[in-house]
Amino acid sequence: MAQKVKLSTIADSLGLSTATVSLALRDSPLVAEVTRERIKCAARDLGYIYNRRAASLRTSRSGIVGVCVHDIMNPFFGEILKSVENELDRQRQTFILCNHHDDLAKQRSFVDTLLQLGADGLILSPAIGTPASDIRLPEENDLPVTLIARTVEGSGVLGFRGDDSYGMGLAVDHLVALGHRRIAMIGGTALTSTGRDREAGYLAALERAGIEFRPEWRIEGPRNRHSGFDAAATFLQIDNRPTAAACFSDLVALGFMYGLSRAGLRPGVDIAVTGYDDIDEAAIATPPLCTVSNGQSEVGRRAAEALLARLAGQPAADETILITPELRVRQSSDYNWPD
Amino acid sequence: MAQKVKLSTIADSLGLSTATVSLALRDSPLVAEVTRERIKCAARDLGYIYNRRAASLRTSRSGIVGVCVHDIMNPFFGEILKSVENELDRQRQTFILCNHHDDLAKQRSFVDTLLQLGADGLILSPAIGTPASDIRLPEENDLPVTLIARTVEGSGVLGFRGDDSYGMGLAVDHLVALGHRRIAMIGGTALTSTGRDREAGYLAALERAGIEFRPEWRIEGPRNRHSGFDAAATFLQIDNRPTAAACFSDLVALGFMYGLSRAGLRPGVDIAVTGYDDIDEAAIATPPLCTVSNGQSEVGRRAAEALLARLAGQPAADETILITPELRVRQSSDYNWPD
Repeated sequence: MAQKVKLSTIADSLGLSTATVSLALRDSPLVAEVTRERIKCAARDLGYIYNRRAASLRTSRSGIVGVCVHDIMNPFFGEILKSVENELDRQRQTFILCNHHDDLAKQRSFVDTLLQLGADGLILSPAIGTPASDIRLPEENDLPVTLIARTVEGSGVLGFRGDDSYGMGLAVDHLVALGHRRIAMIGGTALTSTGRDREAGYLAALERAGIEFRPEWRIEGPRNRHSGFDAAATFLQIDNRPTAAACFSDLVALGFMYGLSRAGLRPGVDIAVTGYDDIDEAAIATPPLCTVSNGQSEVGRRAAEALLARLAGQPAADETILITPELRVRQSSDYNWPD
Repeated sequence: MAQKVKLSTIADSLGLSTATVSLALRDSPLVAEVTRERIKCAARDLGYIYNRRAASLRTSRSGIVGVCVHDIMNPFFGEILKSVENELDRQRQTFILCNHHDDLAKQRSFVDTLLQLGADGLILSPAIGTPASDIRLPEENDLPVTLIARTVEGSGVLGFRGDDSYGMGLAVDHLVALGHRRIAMIGGTALTSTGRDREAGYLAALERAGIEFRPEWRIEGPRNRHSGFDAAATFLQIDNRPTAAACFSDLVALGFMYGLSRAGLRPGVDIAVTGYDDIDEAAIATPPLCTVSNGQSEVGRRAAEALLARLAGQPAADETILITPELRVRQSSDYNWPD
């Protein structure tokens, strides 16, 4: 087994000070280039880089936090991550990301990597089908976990997400108030807690309004812009076509509006459309997208704060904190709405 | 200094086989839950997790590749990363991501993390102002680097990017062929090689067409959807307003089209618009976006292949490989174009 190489070992082997060696290895111009080269060669020969990893064995914190979501390219996660990053930056934590694409094996492999690296914590939006034991495993191995956006029954850790059922209710109540009686719901899947809760909110709002739900109004599946675009064709073939569509997310709604336009229909005039998330793009879209603000920045900030509190010694809490969403009325639901 | 703890140490302390300990630590159901718990407790007491890191000292490969770009949420990078991920998955490399947001300190801190972790390689779209020495440092410390999208003079490593000057020329030649003589260029900055090369392509195409460039046609800066939206207001105030706009990227063009619509103008009818990148959304947008395909998936695939070849022992090559872009004509440049 290799001996640990310290800066002083390299310094001694060359007859230099430890400070000089340290500066040279960080490529400081304070050390002459020839000397730097000599120091780097000696360090390499002695296997110093590997032993920088060994050095981390002596501290209990690596300064690394992992973040794993199903798709980092989704602006909803992008906005959560921006506020997570802000919090972690202030604590000088390095932040590494991974897409699991709802693949349990990928998620597990990232968790393994974090354990191997001795990471300080994990912020996770769990893949579809994540068993509670996959969250208890890192927890039991001193890698605290905070959940965002999705939660897992029995995981025993803190999670932050919007109150999806209430939020979808806000959108559907608004469409009902505008006079719509045939309202479709486009996108999302019952495989995620988000999908289940938003659908429950949609169904409850129809019931509140005394509207009998018709199964053909529910177009399940779409979760991105492209599948939202494709869903417009399906929507347009519904018998006794709905006059309004409450979409699972802004991406789905923006794609759906592209699809309506492609078919010659005007979103906000011919068909009322609502989104969910209030991503940056919603307010500038054509037409501006009526949507539900989902508190992304609050979810991100509070998840990061909770993780940092765990690192500071606070015990795990088995609780899901629901952030209250807000409706943002814009012209996609009613073109006559003032801009 | 802590002693290294081996699986056999844990096994001996409990009177179990090394195989059982190994299975239990990976949470295998082959080991009874009670035993697993006992093994995990012992492992924790002995500090075993830390020593999994030490274990990696004994192998020369960590199986980790870092990828660092200015903004992962930009779909252009998203599409490059998708193909990088495909290649790395096949080699069972774990893939960790970082946004540098064009902040050199953040980029350096990620490189430090990779060095500390003993990562196998780095795929980098360098931050604005990256000195060649910031790329030579990881290279000199056995962390091979492949550049994507942007390159750095004198870095001495392989880079892959689209031929941006040629590509922007394709878009502007197309606008000229449609009869436009006043053509603006929206977005991008001379601080990146991409920005400089696309601007050079724009200017060269005007010159080929015998059109004298007017400085007010060049709206520098926008690089995302929101700033593209804002640029429409600036564009609409240009004296003797251009009839066409060649945008720096699809995101800028999509935001710019939102901005034109907000002002009551129809992209493709009143103002011809082209983008750059051919992201997924371009083909479904309203109107469909005429753009330049930038070979994202080829850039990603070839960068990953090149890095894997380095890991297999191939020497570094000081070369930038230009991928040839292609024009995708759609209705945003000419509404009469067949869909």
